[in-house]
Amino acid sequence: MFRKLMTFDEAKRVIAEKLKPEALGEKEISLLEAYNRVLRENVVSALDIPPFNRSTVDGFAVKAEDTFGAEENQPAKLKLCGIVNLGEPPKIRLATGEAAEIVTGAPIPEGADAVVMVEDTDREDAELRVYRAVTKDGNVMKKGTDIKKGETVLKAGQVLGASEIGVLAALGLTKVKVFKVPVVAVLSTGGEVTEPGKELPAGKIYDINAYSLSTAVRESGGKPVYLGVVPDDKAALRKALEHALASADMVLTSGGVSVGPRDLTPQIVDSLGKPGVLISGIAVKPGKPTTVALIGRKPVFSLPGHPTSALLMFHLLARPVIQLMSGRPATEAKTVKALAAARMFQAKGRRTFVMVKLKRDRLDRLLAEPVETGASGAITTLAKADGFVEIPENQQFVDADEEVTVALLKEAV
Amino acid sequence: MFRKLMTFDEAKRVIAEKLKPEALGEKEISLLEAYNRVLRENVVSALDIPPFNRSTVDGFAVKAEDTFGAEENQPAKLKLCGIVNLGEPPKIRLATGEAAEIVTGAPIPEGADAVVMVEDTDREDAELRVYRAVTKDGNVMKKGTDIKKGETVLKAGQVLGASEIGVLAALGLTKVKVFKVPVVAVLSTGGEVTEPGKELPAGKIYDINAYSLSTAVRESGGKPVYLGVVPDDKAALRKALEHALASADMVLTSGGVSVGPRDLTPQIVDSLGKPGVLISGIAVKPGKPTTVALIGRKPVFSLPGHPTSALLMFHLLARPVIQLMSGRPATEAKTVKALAAARMFQAKGRRTFVMVKLKRDRLDRLLAEPVETGASGAITTLAKADGFVEIPENQQFVDADEEVTVALLKEAV
Repeated sequence: MFRKLMTFDEAKRVIAEKLKPEALGEKEISLLEAYNRVLRENVVSALDIPPFNRSTVDGFAVKAEDTFGAEENQPAKLKLCGIVNLGEPPKIRLATGEAAEIVTGAPIPEGADAVVMVEDTDREDAELRVYRAVTKDGNVMKKGTDIKKGETVLKAGQVLGASEIGVLAALGLTKVKVFKVPVVAVLSTGGEVTEPGKELPAGKIYDINAYSLSTAVRESGGKPVYLGVVPDDKAALRKALEHALASADMVLTSGGVSVGPRDLTPQIVDSLGKPGVLISGIAVKPGKPTTVALIGRKPVFSLPGHPTSALLMFHLLARPVIQLMSGRPATEAKTVKALAAARMFQAKGRRTFVMVKLKRDRLDRLLAEPVETGASGAITTLAKADGFVEIPENQQFVDADEEVTVALLKEAV
Repeated sequence: MFRKLMTFDEAKRVIAEKLKPEALGEKEISLLEAYNRVLRENVVSALDIPPFNRSTVDGFAVKAEDTFGAEENQPAKLKLCGIVNLGEPPKIRLATGEAAEIVTGAPIPEGADAVVMVEDTDREDAELRVYRAVTKDGNVMKKGTDIKKGETVLKAGQVLGASEIGVLAALGLTKVKVFKVPVVAVLSTGGEVTEPGKELPAGKIYDINAYSLSTAVRESGGKPVYLGVVPDDKAALRKALEHALASADMVLTSGGVSVGPRDLTPQIVDSLGKPGVLISGIAVKPGKPTTVALIGRKPVFSLPGHPTSALLMFHLLARPVIQLMSGRPATEAKTVKALAAARMFQAKGRRTFVMVKLKRDRLDRLLAEPVETGASGAITTLAKADGFVEIPENQQFVDADEEVTVALLKEAV
């Protein structure tokens, strides 16, 4: 299966059908830590909300019929029989012709069936004059009208934001079952890279990918495990990959997937379990050497060493897998329309992704300006590119001034 | 100063001018934990990248002039003098007429000034035939061409994503100075609410706001400190507010700001330090009782008890303050255009925010459908509303089918 280039669409199909990424399982966590997590199961209310008939205004609890016919010049006259305290079961029971002081949110006392607003009344000692009639249930929020006991209030798969967490609190919950966050081991290979934070040996450069990909994992809803740079020999690489597979739900490697004699990663990955390597090279540019394997149930993505290519392939292929493993829908990158600032060429029948920077011209039109992605722009490309333009296999180029769709790699532009 | 309603615009101006929210200070953190944090200072590269002249292809390091005139039928013939290892300083020094095997990323050996691609060569024992001439610096990425030592590569205020963290790793860094995350204490008041997770006493409902606002703080880039529900008496409230001010950079309370006799919060807040309460009621609907104070340098927002009003006022007024305290620009809510599904009225000269749910009609037009926000929809409103439509003070209503701008409270719609 090695070295046969798949089309980009075939690769995506193989990932969907063979990797079959799906949510990993559940975890019960504190509601206060549940921001941005995904609900594991439908949430059914165990109580009526409100749990009692409740006043929606400040005023006086009454029997509605005692106010019938009341108007500005002919107030109904009622006898004040007490105060309903907020947050307590009422100690009062209203008889005909009586009224009880009440505030917003307090329970309606027995015998009362409506509340007149304080603005529509006036009082003198124990006598209350009501200048406007109120109908039965007027200014009362009845038990269970907001949420009924047994009602499904949130559905499995919903992402928890401030509103959803507020709703769960309303039900009295402090814990919630969410999908597990997939743990993704990230390691770099290649004899030319060394880990940041150490002295730079002559002839080497600092590794970028383990850091940028770890961050991209986090951004996608996964939990990265940074494993750093693995020495460029077979035994060390095998040991590192075995460790990565044992300690994570998914593995990302970068480097070591070109055709050079030292590019051992795919061979070792393939030997670690079944079904092994499923995709060995994709007809895309950049990112051609990308390989994808499945070892048991764990996906292994071996991305190119070039930082921009690695991050691009991550976004296109690995990110949706992490999202699905988190119980989220796989989201497409957000896109904006822009005008191509220059002609962009497709590469020899391969699906081509041109990294671009967005800027506005003097007419305030949004332009997509290609950013050099060759070896000579490895690092600064990362910092400059806002997104990419995709050129299909059957199109030779995108012309300058043509409208293009830019898929955004960064949220804010 | 109490009870004079400010217009919404005045309130925003007072917050900008009197609270003067600004970034809190710096913290050095691990690069692996820096996702979504804000860079505290410009980052200047301490090294040239690449740190040496580097091959951008697999092939042979040569003296360019030794290949001049080489073509398909007339190859230049060179003598192979060794191999340049990846990740090591080259041990070779090229003499005229010599070539050395080299891979992508390896340092150019002394004496060489170009690399011929392996596809353009052919070898027999120690003889290399070069079928295409290469110019000086051809296929060489020269020292410092990507980033120069002393060059500013990232600027203070940039939010750190995968690309930026990759760039920092390229410089050899493993730590980075970022702005501190503002700590925001969140507490609820009101005799009718009790904390989730406990038995529900008769006459009470579960508190929503401390949970929804804590989550909203996190969503805005702050760190919430959940202080729960404070008993509804003066001494307890004063103690809780003093504790909140001592342990956080900002305080959010909800409930206890209406005109009822028990609404003590603003009075106590005002007594805790100078300048005290700056905004005491805003001519908005909902959210009128919102008060804003500054105690020393710490903002205190006292939001309404109604969960939807509290969250709305948080978004409009407190969220930008948290963003500025995190070193971020204050962002406006994202908006979408939609058609009003029903007439929406402005409330008595107050800036009015109508909570709406977005949905598509049969013609696939996006509609903004008002969600009931009265007392009778307190909790379900939170779950249903996607955003809000703003109606200015000088406009009586928005008509059905009119185009409206919906500010989104949730990211995904």
